[in-house]
Formats: sequence, C-alpha cells, structure tokens
Amino acid sequence: MDITPSRRVVLAGSASAMAAVGAAALPAHTAAPRGPAAPATQDADVCRAVARAVLVLDEHGEPLVPRYKKVLLDGGLPRRRAAGKNVLIVGAGPAGLVAARLLRDAGHRVTVIEANANRVGGRIKTFRTGGHEQAKPPFTDPHQYAEAGAMRIPDSHPLVTGLLDQLGLARRPFYLTDVDHDGQPALRTWIHANGIRVRRADYRKRPYALNRSFGVPKKYENTPSTEILRQALAPVRTLIDGKQGTELVDGWAKILRVYGNWSMYRYLTEAAGLDERTIDLIGTVDNLTSRIHLSFLHSFFSTALISPATRFFELPGGTATLADALYEPVRDLVRLDRRATRIEHHEAGVTVHTVSENRTGADVVEEAFTGDAAILTVPFAGLRHLTFSPALSYGKRRAITELHYDAATKVLLEFSRRWWEFTEADWRRELEAVRPGLYDAYRLGRALADGSLLGAHPSVPPGHISTAQRVHYNACRATQRDQPAAAHVIGGGSTTDNPNRFMFQPSHPVPGSAGGIVLASYSWSDDALKWDAFDDEERYPRALGGVQDVYGQRIEVFYTGAGRTQSWMRDPYAYGEASVLLPGQHTELFPHVPTREGVLHFAGCHTSVKPAWIEGALESAVRTALEVHAN
Amino acid sequence: MDITPSRRVVLAGSASAMAAVGAAALPAHTAAPRGPAAPATQDADVCRAVARAVLVLDEHGEPLVPRYKKVLLDGGLPRRRAAGKNVLIVGAGPAGLVAARLLRDAGHRVTVIEANANRVGGRIKTFRTGGHEQAKPPFTDPHQYAEAGAMRIPDSHPLVTGLLDQLGLARRPFYLTDVDHDGQPALRTWIHANGIRVRRADYRKRPYALNRSFGVPKKYENTPSTEILRQALAPVRTLIDGKQGTELVDGWAKILRVYGNWSMYRYLTEAAGLDERTIDLIGTVDNLTSRIHLSFLHSFFSTALISPATRFFELPGGTATLADALYEPVRDLVRLDRRATRIEHHEAGVTVHTVSENRTGADVVEEAFTGDAAILTVPFAGLRHLTFSPALSYGKRRAITELHYDAATKVLLEFSRRWWEFTEADWRRELEAVRPGLYDAYRLGRALADGSLLGAHPSVPPGHISTAQRVHYNACRATQRDQPAAAHVIGGGSTTDNPNRFMFQPSHPVPGSAGGIVLASYSWSDDALKWDAFDDEERYPRALGGVQDVYGQRIEVFYTGAGRTQSWMRDPYAYGEASVLLPGQHTELFPHVPTREGVLHFAGCHTSVKPAWIEGALESAVRTALEVHAN
Repeated sequence: MDITPSRRVVLAGSASAMAAVGAAALPAHTAAPRGPAAPATQDADVCRAVARAVLVLDEHGEPLVPRYKKVLLDGGLPRRRAAGKNVLIVGAGPAGLVAARLLRDAGHRVTVIEANANRVGGRIKTFRTGGHEQAKPPFTDPHQYAEAGAMRIPDSHPLVTGLLDQLGLARRPFYLTDVDHDGQPALRTWIHANGIRVRRADYRKRPYALNRSFGVPKKYENTPSTEILRQALAPVRTLIDGKQGTELVDGWAKILRVYGNWSMYRYLTEAAGLDERTIDLIGTVDNLTSRIHLSFLHSFFSTALISPATRFFELPGGTATLADALYEPVRDLVRLDRRATRIEHHEAGVTVHTVSENRTGADVVEEAFTGDAAILTVPFAGLRHLTFSPALSYGKRRAITELHYDAATKVLLEFSRRWWEFTEADWRRELEAVRPGLYDAYRLGRALADGSLLGAHPSVPPGHISTAQRVHYNACRATQRDQPAAAHVIGGGSTTDNPNRFMFQPSHPVPGSAGGIVLASYSWSDDALKWDAFDDEERYPRALGGVQDVYGQRIEVFYTGAGRTQSWMRDPYAYGEASVLLPGQHTELFPHVPTREGVLHFAGCHTSVKPAWIEGALESAVRTALEVHAN
Repeated sequence: MDITPSRRVVLAGSASAMAAVGAAALPAHTAAPRGPAAPATQDADVCRAVARAVLVLDEHGEPLVPRYKKVLLDGGLPRRRAAGKNVLIVGAGPAGLVAARLLRDAGHRVTVIEANANRVGGRIKTFRTGGHEQAKPPFTDPHQYAEAGAMRIPDSHPLVTGLLDQLGLARRPFYLTDVDHDGQPALRTWIHANGIRVRRADYRKRPYALNRSFGVPKKYENTPSTEILRQALAPVRTLIDGKQGTELVDGWAKILRVYGNWSMYRYLTEAAGLDERTIDLIGTVDNLTSRIHLSFLHSFFSTALISPATRFFELPGGTATLADALYEPVRDLVRLDRRATRIEHHEAGVTVHTVSENRTGADVVEEAFTGDAAILTVPFAGLRHLTFSPALSYGKRRAITELHYDAATKVLLEFSRRWWEFTEADWRRELEAVRPGLYDAYRLGRALADGSLLGAHPSVPPGHISTAQRVHYNACRATQRDQPAAAHVIGGGSTTDNPNRFMFQPSHPVPGSAGGIVLASYSWSDDALKWDAFDDEERYPRALGGVQDVYGQRIEVFYTGAGRTQSWMRDPYAYGEASVLLPGQHTELFPHVPTREGVLHFAGCHTSVKPAWIEGALESAVRTALEVHAN
C-alpha cells in the first residue's frame, strides 16, 4: 500500500486556532475577526496540531492529562489573586457540571443554563424509577433501569475513572462480549447474517460458512472478519504502534495528512484493496457499515485508542449516578428549562438569552443571563441555531455549520427473567411452568406464533402488553421456527444483519429483580433513523421480533410489554449521538472547534478527539475552566 | 486533471441484475437465490448498464422513453391473451397510482395498499384547504396553499409533462430565480453570506466582495461561484457533451467507472484542485455543502440532466392536483391506512401483510392481501423493516439495507401581502397604514424589535400569532437593523448562510388572495435535521427571523402566525426526501434496485436515476406494469 499525501490543499485556519488545539490556556485576544483570517497555514502544521489533540498534548508536546488530573482530582484550579468572575455555563452535561464545580471552588460566581426541564447529564441518561420521567417507573419492575446513553467506561480513560474514585462511586465490569458465570470469556452469543447463525467462539474457529454467505473471495473464506480488518488497518497502525514522544506525534500527523480526507469506505477499497463482499462482511460483523462513508479517522481512532485489551466498567444503579454526583455540589447553580437562543458578547462580558419551551406545560418565558465569560458546552449542531452578536470567526462559523453529528437509536425491552443466562434445563423448567409441552413445542417449531404467547410466563405482570402491540407483533414478525440452544451467558450480546443490528444483555443482575432490560437494538446513522419511523407500540414488538430472529421465538414468554427508546437524533437538545466527522473535517474544521472567541469558551466531548466519551467532556471541562480562570 | 480508473474492485452483481437495469421487461426467472451469486461481473459491464439507466435505454441501447410514452399516453399496455392477474401495489404515490391504472385498463385486478390514512400522492403533498388535514385550512387565508414536496416540473421530463397534457391539467411557469412583472429575469433576490448581502445580478457582475468574504484565492476573486463550479466540472462534461448513441453511453460509463465511488467533496478537492475556501463559496451559493460528502454522481447528474436552460412548471392549485387526477380513476382500488409489514412470496403468488397504525385514533388492525404479483413502490429505507419470506437476493438485501436516503425539511410561512413584489413606494404606503412614521422607523433601524410588530398590518387577521411565538421570536432574533431596498420581484428566492439556507417566493398569486406563502427555509441533510429539533411554535418565529436577516425586519408586519413544516425524514412512510446515494452506491447497489425477484417488482423514483423527480416514478410505473403484464 502506498502512503503518499493526497493532492488536496488544506487551508485550515489561523495560527491562533492551531495553537489552541489541545492547549490548556490561551493568551487573551480581542474580539474574533468577522472575515476569514488569511489561510496561510501549512497542511503539515495543522496535522501536527490535530495529532497533539489526539494525544492530548499541549503546543510544546507536553502531556496535558497529568495537569488535568491534578486540577480535577487533586488541587482544583490554581490560586488566583484577582476577584472572581461571573461565569455562565451553557449545558449541564458532564463538561458543564465539572467546569461549574471547578470554577465555583476557585471563587467564581457560576450560573449553569440547561435546556432540559427535568434532568441534567447530557448524553448520560438512565431510564430509572424516580429519574427524569417522574410520573412513573419506566419498566414494570420498579427496580429495573437501563441506559439511554453512556453505558460503559473504558479503563484507558484516566480522568473519568479517577473521578469515579474521587466521588466514591463503585464500578464493576461491563461485558462487551459475553462471559461465563465465573467471569471468563464465553463467546456463546451469536453472529447472525444471511440467514446463518453462528456462536462467536465458533466463528473465530470456523469462519467459512458465514464468510461464504457473504461471497468473500477464497483468500478470506477462512479468516475471521475482525482479523481481516486488523490486517487491513495494519499499515496505518505501524505509523504509531510502539512509537513515543515526537515520533508518535509525527506518526499521527502523517495519518492525518494522508487519510484526513478519506472515508473508511475509501480506505478499505483503495488502500486495503478489499472487494465489496469482504467489506460487507466486516461492515456487518465489526459495525462499520452504517458509518463507512464517514471519516476514516473516526473509525480508526476507535480501534487505536481503545485496544482489544481494554476493559470496560459500568456504574451500579446506572451511569446517571455519576451525573447525580456531579450535580449535587452545583445544584444551586443550575437553571433548568432554559434553552440558549442568542448570545451577545464583547470584550467586557456576555449576555445569554434563553427561552423555556413549554415542554412541561408552563408558559413560554424568556430570560437573559449576563456574565464576564461563558463556556458553551452545547453540541455544535445546536449552536447552529443560536445567533451570535457579533458573528463568530469564519472558522468557527464553518465548524458550527458543517460539523457532522450522527444518529444513534437504542430500543430497550424488559424481560421478567434473564433468559440469556439460562441453560436448556432452565428453559425446560420455565416453559413447562407456562404450559406442559411448551418447551418441546418451541423446540420443534410448533408453538403458536400469533403473539398469544407474548408475556405468557407467570412471572410477567399482567396488563402491560397492549392489544396494539399484539396486532403489530403478528403483522410484522416472520415465523422463524428454528430454536437455537440456550445462550447461557452473562452480559455481552449478539450481532445481526436484521434491523436490530446490535443487541446487548445486562452484565449484572439488578438487586431485588429476577428480570432484566435488554438493549434489543443499538443502531447508528441511517439504521437508527429507520427505527424512528415507528410509534413505540409498533417499535417494541418489532424489536422483540429482531431478538427472536437471533435467540429463537421462546424468549417472548418473558417479554413484559414495557420498553423505552432513545433516539439521539430526535432528542431536541442533543442533535445526534455525537460529532462523527466527515472526511476532511478533522483537519479543516476540528482546529476551529475548541478555540475561544473573546470571552466565549467551547467545551463538550466534540471539542476533544473522543466524541461520545465522558473522558473527552472532562478534558474539555478542565481546559475551559483553566482558560476562564487564567484570563 | 487525470481521468484514470481508481484501484477499486467492483464486484457488483449477477448478470441478470445488470441486464435488468433500464430494461422494459425481463424474462421470468425462478425464486431469487438466498446466497450471493458469484460476483463475476466486470466493472465495465456494470458501468455500461448503469449508464444505460442514466439515459433510460434498454439493454440493446434503444431508448425506452418513446415506448414508455406510448404506453402511458397513447395505447396503454399491449393487448394480451392470457387472463388478468391479481396484482398488489404497495404505495399510492405517483408510481403506484399510474401502474394501477395501466394494469386495470389492461384487464388485471388491482389492489393498492397505502400506509397513509388521509392521503395518496407520496412525496407529492400540498398543504391546502380540504386536503389531507381535513380539520381546518392550513393557513389563515383558506385560498392559500403550499407545497410540502414536489413543487416544480422541468420541461425536460417528457412523461410527466405528457401526462399533464393527457389529464388536461394546466401548467404555468415556476420561477426558480426571480423575474420582473413582465416575466423577464430580474435577479434582484439576494445572496447573503458572511454578513454580506448582494443581489444576484450584482453578484454576477461584481463577485469580488462576496468571494473575498470567503477568503478565496486571488484567481477566483472575480469569478462568480456558478462559473467556478462549471469550470470545475467541465472535464467531466466533455465526456458526454455533444455525444450521442454509443459514444454517449461510453461517456457516461467512463464517468461511472472513474468517479463512481467519489464524493463531490473528493472531486472538488482532488480532481478540480479547489481549495477549502472556494469550496465553501460554491457550497454555500450553489447548494452543495450539505450533500458534498454524498455521491459525486448525484450532484453531477443534477447539473447534467437539468441544464441551465431548463424551464420549470408548476400546477395551479398545487402539485396535489396531479395526485388527485391520478387517484380519481383508481380510487376504488386503494386501501388507505395499511402499512405493509411482511411479504410472503413464491412462484405462484404473494401475500402482503399490513397493519393500520392507529394514527386516526381507530383500533390497530391487521389485514393480509394476496395476489399473483406485487409491485413495491415503497422507498428502500422503508423496505428495511419489512420481512420477506423467503429472503430476497443478496444484492437486493444489501441495497435495501444501505441505499442512502437524505433528509430535507421545508418551513412555510404565511404573509398577508406579497411583500416581495413591493416597490419602495408600496412599502411606504403599507407601513404608513400600520402607523405613521413606521416606514422611516424601519428604514433607519429604529422600529421596535421585540416582536410587538409581528402581524401589525391591518390585513393580518387577529388571533393567530400566539404569545409563545412572540416570546420565541424575541429570544431568538438578532436585531439586524439594516433595511435593504425592496425586492420588487415575482417568484424566485434568496440564498443565505444562515440556517434557512434557501427561500422561495411563490411564482403566482392565488386567486382571491392578496397574500402568499413563502418557503422560508428549504434545507437538506444535516441542515434539515437541525430544524426538526424545534416545536412549531418555536420553528416559525425562527424561520421568520432568517427571512428578515435577508429582506429586512419590516416583512414582519405581514406575518400571519400561520406556518407549516414538512420534515421528510420524520415522515413515518417517506424515510427522507429521496434516495441520494453515497459514493460507490451507483455501481455497487443501484444495479440491484429495479430488478424483479420472482413475483415481486420494484418501482418508485429510487429505481430510476432521477430520485425525487416524478419523471423517475413514472418511468418505473410503466416499466413494472409492463413486467407484470408480460409475465
């Protein structure tokens, strides 16, 4: 494979924009220019600046994370002689809440403006009893809860894991792939595509049947998809693997220079030389298809920054317990139900106009807040509809207009028993408890498939499966009558080419409950938008049918009729799951994302190279708190 | 610029799939294979097949349009000796309605299954009194109407213009750019970007100021953006311009082979060698930015198939009058409120399972229909959640999973006077009628900007501007106090870099009404999804503010408070504005889109190379009617 710079001309931004990428604090400068700065920057300089952001280094190549850790976990912001400032923070996600605490502790007066009327936390959101849906528990079992957003924390993220320790929040393993009852990898969940169902462990050993069903060329017929992908990315990995210091920055800069404007599709076809069928295979199994036309770098970062050895954690009680803990010390500073609509800023201060949105039935009211400086943690997609007076710099405006946010939708279903943990003996016992002979009826494909067995197990509380759900179930579901053997696993989940795409079982039981919430469908991009076309009463039986495709029809007896959906693209304040950049945006737009504009500072995971991860939000919280504090 | 084939390997499909692209009728074949066909096809063959589809030629290179015209407008389907069939048609858009009429007239028994409970027409949809919103007129003036979807018909589309003539439907000019009161090009509407506002005619003559505001390099400072784009595309145009017959097919095949897997972004950067700032300019002015990461071919087709000389038509009373006329002769065949959910098919017939969706408050009911053959006109994004038994062919499954549908959102606002037609004298007279001195107050930037002047003109009926709209207006709107001179135009519209992006005024008055509906914002892709984040009461004042940015504050006195929004991505049955393909999909997926699978036939504009155009739907209607009739 050749690695040569493309013919593209990069004219990405002003020197100050570049210097700021990954920099802890910036020199004050006067109001942002309205017209574009002369685009005199060299391609190579931009790539090195973004490379430092990838590695979280300052402009001298020094690591920022130790400094950020010290501020976040140890001493807070440095001592300061000047009087405290009035600071406005827009958005009460993890970035906003953490910045608020740091700045308040350092003697500043802080107001946090949050658009949601019923919760803080941003894309940390747990469906739980007593949570944001205050009217009633989200599931039939009030002990149950499930994640709408952030659900796992990698051990390679030092700020968030350190913060959990500091806050005294327990954590436990999150099993991305299924384990045995003793915590050892089981890999008994399924890969299901082209009508073929194979356990993960079996696929690793004998990939032939599944690969053949995609029509891959002979040379790949016996290679597992993850290995094909690993080999395809290996030439790029060699640019960074085992490198340190300047060499590592240079390696990342070269990746950015060569592939900065490539999509993953282009990489796999043109650089890796893979054919269409092999790309279909790895796209389906390794979750590349839906985002394959987006930036190569985004997908590559995911594989490079989170290694196969990475362990994941979750929080007992839900990730929202972290949001709770971040909210607690600044609760009195947060104004809920205020969507920022217009921002006036000048050298001496800032006014943030807001509006309540009547989502709680109250009158629509307008309220303005003034301060000496503001930290905007809102996704750039959301900033697009804010008016700034005066206008922001050219680079920031283009970033706000164009930075791509991608859809993700989760469909969660409640079951009264954790059937994925069952052995066949468990299945026999529980199905016979419904009706003698039912175990064999399912096994032989003779059980009724008309929806009458939905929630038939005595453990399912009556009254939650509506007639409409049964009708939809009946109308939608194909009768796949084959019954695979019991999964008998803890956690993990299966992959399918049906619309559900990815499903995950909970890694741990909920105390006091024999059931569990399954993430029946987790999909991205175009796949996610299609789920949004249905009302809940139609979506849930469809999602159930997709899980049955994989695990067999019999799971239906434990379905309680309760579900929850989170479409991040339809969330009125999130505008998508995260900033997932398009080809070229890492070098053209990203340098303009975290830079301050006069008294306006920009935080949130999208200002880091870890969109969608809490770690990126925390980096930005400390960075902007330092910026505000120093100036 | 080099034009050399890329290194990509195309393994796009079976020979039968290729032969079918653009073919009028296909030989019967038995049920589709479940596994993939051996991917033995040559790149060049696929490209030639798609090239023929672009030109609407059959597999021998003979033009299909004359044949289609004869069937559609002249003699109907050919005489046939065999008994009529039971034909199910899924979807009552133009493709479904036309296929239904052709097949019924030829002696077949037809049932049309439509998911919407209140209308037919698909993406032909007019907001009008007595229309699908039966409860009340959409605007305060019951004479007014506006297009949610199809709004213009190019004179280069022979099937649809022929059909209008056949149906006796009048048509009149649709002015894509504004004209004088005598119908001559005026070009007095605005291009508004980076805080600069310039009339179209002035920009053509003196592009310097606007181009400079984007920071384009010196060589482009004095070239209008459309001319830069024309020059950039010229090397590709030379492959087809002036060519005919085999040479023209070869030209298109070469374009497909070389650029089939390129995005427009890649073309402009790597082939045309444009810098980022110049791409920003043409992206903003010529509407490329939001779809720049999508297929180069899609945008290129638009420029190549619709020339600058193309004239557009519209239908008095709205495009829905065409849907009405297509509905009339088959009204008794159409079953509304039936969403197809599952399809069982075999050599001898097909069963389509459907469900009503309770959107009208009625019970959810299931109903199954059986026939000898079915024509599916549903967008492929919608087919993704249908279950097929047996599974469709590999190529069709991938196309259904991956074919990209793009978002588009229209925001329509009602005004009590057609202020865009005003001279300054008209403005003075009308504003003085509100309050003496108001004309000068606006002109000097001294009128109140707090929303109190919304709908202040005596022609605005009271009671439609809610308090919530006024509060939102106040919270959102930046006070741009400069007042440009009167537009004084008919039709056309302006382009802005604010979130509204593109706005269009009506080309003709509505009889009996002094007002008009402005398409205040027409946006695509990511731009469109952001508008979807607001409730109507917040969206309309925001859209108004965007129009004021361009035309000045004073238009507010005619705003009635009535608006309508169409988000095609949020439409539960449309799944987007149209299939706008990703790089590579024209050669990898498109060959599998129109091909039949046993007794299942596929129609709709997405099966043509004219997605979003009625012409493409009509081509597919005749093609599938011929397929069903012949087999």
